[in-house]
Amino acid sequence: MKIVLDAMGSDARPTPDVEGAVRAARAYGLTVILVGDQARIQAELAKHDTRGLALPIVHAPTDIGMTEHVEAVKAKREASMNVALKLVKDKQADAFVTAGNTGAAMAAAIVGPFALGRIQGIKRPALTTLFPTNTGRCLLLDIGANTEVKPEYLYQFALMGSIYAERGLGIRQPRVALLSNGEEEGKGPMVVREAYALLKQSQLNFIGNAEGRDIPQGNADVIVCDGYVGNVVIKLSEALAKTLVGFIKDEIKQRPLAMVGALLAKPAFDALKARLDPSAIGGGMLLGVDGVVVIGHGRSDARAIQNALRVAKDAVEGNVVELIRAGLQGEANGK
Amino acid sequence: MKIVLDAMGSDARPTPDVEGAVRAARAYGLTVILVGDQARIQAELAKHDTRGLALPIVHAPTDIGMTEHVEAVKAKREASMNVALKLVKDKQADAFVTAGNTGAAMAAAIVGPFALGRIQGIKRPALTTLFPTNTGRCLLLDIGANTEVKPEYLYQFALMGSIYAERGLGIRQPRVALLSNGEEEGKGPMVVREAYALLKQSQLNFIGNAEGRDIPQGNADVIVCDGYVGNVVIKLSEALAKTLVGFIKDEIKQRPLAMVGALLAKPAFDALKARLDPSAIGGGMLLGVDGVVVIGHGRSDARAIQNALRVAKDAVEGNVVELIRAGLQGEANGK
Repeated sequence: MKIVLDAMGSDARPTPDVEGAVRAARAYGLTVILVGDQARIQAELAKHDTRGLALPIVHAPTDIGMTEHVEAVKAKREASMNVALKLVKDKQADAFVTAGNTGAAMAAAIVGPFALGRIQGIKRPALTTLFPTNTGRCLLLDIGANTEVKPEYLYQFALMGSIYAERGLGIRQPRVALLSNGEEEGKGPMVVREAYALLKQSQLNFIGNAEGRDIPQGNADVIVCDGYVGNVVIKLSEALAKTLVGFIKDEIKQRPLAMVGALLAKPAFDALKARLDPSAIGGGMLLGVDGVVVIGHGRSDARAIQNALRVAKDAVEGNVVELIRAGLQGEANGK
Repeated sequence: MKIVLDAMGSDARPTPDVEGAVRAARAYGLTVILVGDQARIQAELAKHDTRGLALPIVHAPTDIGMTEHVEAVKAKREASMNVALKLVKDKQADAFVTAGNTGAAMAAAIVGPFALGRIQGIKRPALTTLFPTNTGRCLLLDIGANTEVKPEYLYQFALMGSIYAERGLGIRQPRVALLSNGEEEGKGPMVVREAYALLKQSQLNFIGNAEGRDIPQGNADVIVCDGYVGNVVIKLSEALAKTLVGFIKDEIKQRPLAMVGALLAKPAFDALKARLDPSAIGGGMLLGVDGVVVIGHGRSDARAIQNALRVAKDAVEGNVVELIRAGLQGEANGK
């Protein structure tokens, strides 16, 4: 399998990007095509033992900055993201991974000069993330591709999320829920209530509305919302986890015996940190485009990049894009 | 000052309700009118030393259950919530407090048989909460009264929130922000972008958009959103805090030395718990109705009830309702 990596994606590019590619090539036997500044990529590769690994480089003379927008994606045809996507579009690679600017990466895949286009019948692509829960992980979508939605979009997010959860994440018969402000049918804004009606009639394992509390409690495998509330959920959760740990540290600092306690309890805190570490997740799928696209966090380290490449590999192996296409046709035929 | 308390509000009614009233009457010199089953209230009062305290009882033969809806509010004219609100409506009390069913309490105040009505010019009332932050507290509204909003509603929520934060919470020139999925102007759904334009032109200390992370980070004093996303934020945050503490406990249990550490660090965890304890907040104001209405959590204990009564007292003393009325007129006159 060949996965193309935008090597100029992360904030510290291309260092973690290249190291993550080396790790993923070794761990999963992947060919990772590195796209970006050839000299800088070569210099990074020289730091690692790459014997026997398939890590070809494709040069791209420029890249998209963390503060650039869709205009830059359109104007810079030779930016690393665009060059990388072109390889997928031309069937020279099976998937595209970047830790670059999320908005730009979505734009490149959806409307850029080498956009992959949408799967036929899909109204809007949706960005996913995996949220750590009491019991495992919950797939949340959309977290930022669509600030406004229609009931049919939410329905399609649910369909795509269910297929991806089953085939890309290995969750059997995923429990699908709509994010709302109450459990009962009839709760929520009109768009949610209308999506509820669509989902109730579908073949999905739709369990009804989920409330905010159901996300961390792990009461659903797939939770569907618009990209506005999804984005608020993600950013709130990251900050809240940090704030809580900060509260505890503040309190501990004021108490000498608690300080000793904290030292003894440190391994437990480290384990918590590992459990919440976004680099364990790597990146989120952009579902609905006609190809496997994984977008990681700008702060990605090598481990995050490796995991984002694994996410892409799992989606390719799970045949997620084809199954979404077939799923849409199946629903259209009333199966 | 006379505050009327629905003594049949909390899940464990009337025990914590009456005890909270006794505490508040003593601590703040309030007259607390207790509305509900006279015999049960008297039995609770007999458990406390109430010498010198003003705790009159007004009998109400029935009450609204935790699972009842707006229909029950309309049908049960003599439910404790309705009887209590009638006292405010008839100017026999300065404020109304309940720890009852939030939806029913809002319905009673807005559309019930003794509804207080909206402040003239207010399109929609909004429910508030205080969110604990790194630096103090952030007033968040709406958290559940309106699942659909228009730009003007958000603008009015900001105006009401700012006045309440200044006069009821003692925050000078509160920083007001709109919850969105990006900091820049132009981010967010259309309704948020249009509200941004209204707020930019206003006299408020509007600091622009806030993202999810800005809520716990304390980067704004008042954050405005629709009741759908506000409800998700509140329920997510409560559950996430519990989940994180659960994670830590799980990890600690697996490590004998960490267990000793946890014992030593226990005071710090207890302090965290106190900091996050919703009973320290007591209740949220329902802003926009023509009277002071404070709605507490069903799980309220006596301390929460006492604090909810303090919230009501502060709002009455701060003259919040009159100032909102004046603020609306001021904005209407282009002051």
